[in-house]
Amino acid sequence: MTLEDTLKAIVPADRALERAVQAHLDDLTKPPGSLGRLEELASRYCLATHTVTPSLAGKAIVVFAADHGVTAEGVSAYPREVTPQMVRNMLAGGAAINVLARHVGAELTVVDIGVDDPLDDAPGLCRRKIRRGTANIATGPAMSLDEAKRAMQVGIEQAAAACERGASLLGTGEMGIGNTTPASALFAARLPCPVEAVTGRGTGLDDARLAHKVAVIERALAANRAALGDPLAALAALGGLEIAGICGLVLGAAARRVPIVVDGFISCAGAFAACQICEPARDYLFFSHRSAEAGHKVFFERVGVRPLLELDMRLGEGTGAALAIAMIEGAVRIYNEMATFSSAGVAGKEKG
Amino acid sequence: MTLEDTLKAIVPADRALERAVQAHLDDLTKPPGSLGRLEELASRYCLATHTVTPSLAGKAIVVFAADHGVTAEGVSAYPREVTPQMVRNMLAGGAAINVLARHVGAELTVVDIGVDDPLDDAPGLCRRKIRRGTANIATGPAMSLDEAKRAMQVGIEQAAAACERGASLLGTGEMGIGNTTPASALFAARLPCPVEAVTGRGTGLDDARLAHKVAVIERALAANRAALGDPLAALAALGGLEIAGICGLVLGAAARRVPIVVDGFISCAGAFAACQICEPARDYLFFSHRSAEAGHKVFFERVGVRPLLELDMRLGEGTGAALAIAMIEGAVRIYNEMATFSSAGVAGKEKG
Repeated sequence: MTLEDTLKAIVPADRALERAVQAHLDDLTKPPGSLGRLEELASRYCLATHTVTPSLAGKAIVVFAADHGVTAEGVSAYPREVTPQMVRNMLAGGAAINVLARHVGAELTVVDIGVDDPLDDAPGLCRRKIRRGTANIATGPAMSLDEAKRAMQVGIEQAAAACERGASLLGTGEMGIGNTTPASALFAARLPCPVEAVTGRGTGLDDARLAHKVAVIERALAANRAALGDPLAALAALGGLEIAGICGLVLGAAARRVPIVVDGFISCAGAFAACQICEPARDYLFFSHRSAEAGHKVFFERVGVRPLLELDMRLGEGTGAALAIAMIEGAVRIYNEMATFSSAGVAGKEKG
Repeated sequence: MTLEDTLKAIVPADRALERAVQAHLDDLTKPPGSLGRLEELASRYCLATHTVTPSLAGKAIVVFAADHGVTAEGVSAYPREVTPQMVRNMLAGGAAINVLARHVGAELTVVDIGVDDPLDDAPGLCRRKIRRGTANIATGPAMSLDEAKRAMQVGIEQAAAACERGASLLGTGEMGIGNTTPASALFAARLPCPVEAVTGRGTGLDDARLAHKVAVIERALAANRAALGDPLAALAALGGLEIAGICGLVLGAAARRVPIVVDGFISCAGAFAACQICEPARDYLFFSHRSAEAGHKVFFERVGVRPLLELDMRLGEGTGAALAIAMIEGAVRIYNEMATFSSAGVAGKEKG
């Protein structure tokens, strides 16, 4: 599906089903509302999939890997070579996301959407490189508009492929040394908000390097000022390729009415871009967790969302999405598998 | 094992292993600490099981069901018959805890420790009834000290049996109409704190009935004043039988160095009693979630614990424990299955 057709296919969740879904939840053998957010998850899943009889079969997490020209400015605690090294680690099954994807029974796909390494000897890698890393956003655009659209197209195709393999719940993931910088830049430009409010330590910067990172993002916003008024142009200008891929994955999932679990800070930047490009995509999102990255809290406050988990995680890769996928699956199973008051012969609440 | 031998067998977690466990966590291919509370869970599991090479095989949730004489005072939104009805629902596999136990792969045992119903036709039920419900605590003791000890013994035996069947992580659960009342009474008496601070709406009381419940608990504390200075005597005086069972389960798990996940408000009352009876038992506890029951927050503040999840759940049964069990299992798998920096050929953090 093209980007244009994808955007056309995205409709809001079916809120007309809300009453019937709630009636079923209230008929289950428990006090009404006593499963709290699990009930909210089940309801949201039903409305997004436009049915009162949901089925959640396959789960799939897609990890987009890319490099960032802005690492030349010294914005990350880790060297750039770690991106391809971690891609190989993921392909070998040794990264955190491998363990958690296995644990929750989710298929994992690792997509090279822009790693600055040929990754020749990398069996199992999904090869969709748009370019070898973005340009340095501190001095100009991360990529062209065409490149951003092609990266989004990669995400759209990944959503389609995962769904065709049987997924009915997707999760986002990413790997890219330096990628909190473009994510923070996008939030600053498009929430919008002051750079300091959405800029954190990433994988572990000290105070001086954090101040430097803020200054680099200020320069990036200044260098790309003309592009920041439009969400797609801003995404191309500030990057990165994996964020554009996540944006496409969200849009592709929403177009197929398949709910998608958003991982951490960087994934939120991609999902946020998707919602700015196509507002109804929001109905298909589950925000998995609030990470320890400063600025994630600001994002959630501004968009009025309460994430499911707060576990002080700040790794990305899709690790938060994996944990949330298990909870959403549990919620849908509650909806589908619990007995009702009448079927189980259980008395309801007393009057008064 | 007798109660006396169980208490003797409980030793603190092995804090001497902390450095080695942390060193292994820091050698995994992720920035140090970036998996946040998952790392804390893995470390706690290692220390409690006294090993740097943990294995988490079987998981088991034990649900204790019992009735409460204090329901005669009108402290619950549901009629008393719901306790045996829900026991039958659990045995048929239709309750929320059945669904979530299946979802996380935990064995589920339902123990009649004091239901006011013969439950004759209840295949699969573990029959350990101490008495048919407690007496009304508003007018006197819930049970005798001997009955309380026998209920604790049931819990100790259930812990042993589950471990012998292969469990290396336990979870608590309960079912008992009216059981937020004895739980609140125990917290008020033993944290200690004002009754209103730890008394909530249970399964759904309105304002007037909540005020009535507070008054009933005040009467219970006055009627049992002489017993409240000792944790075991207070447990017997205020009840209930399932809370004493949970207390025993915690002690039995700790004696075997098997970590145990504490479910919600009522389970916390049992775990709290266990820790007051034998302080080192605390090292074996994982507090799964903060429920929507007012007072649970007060408990966590007073004991200085941050529970893992906050999902506005208030059902009990072990539902919160089930969700947390999956997260702890994920954390232990992270510890065991992730690659290390050296083995995966991934570069570490840059100096400076």
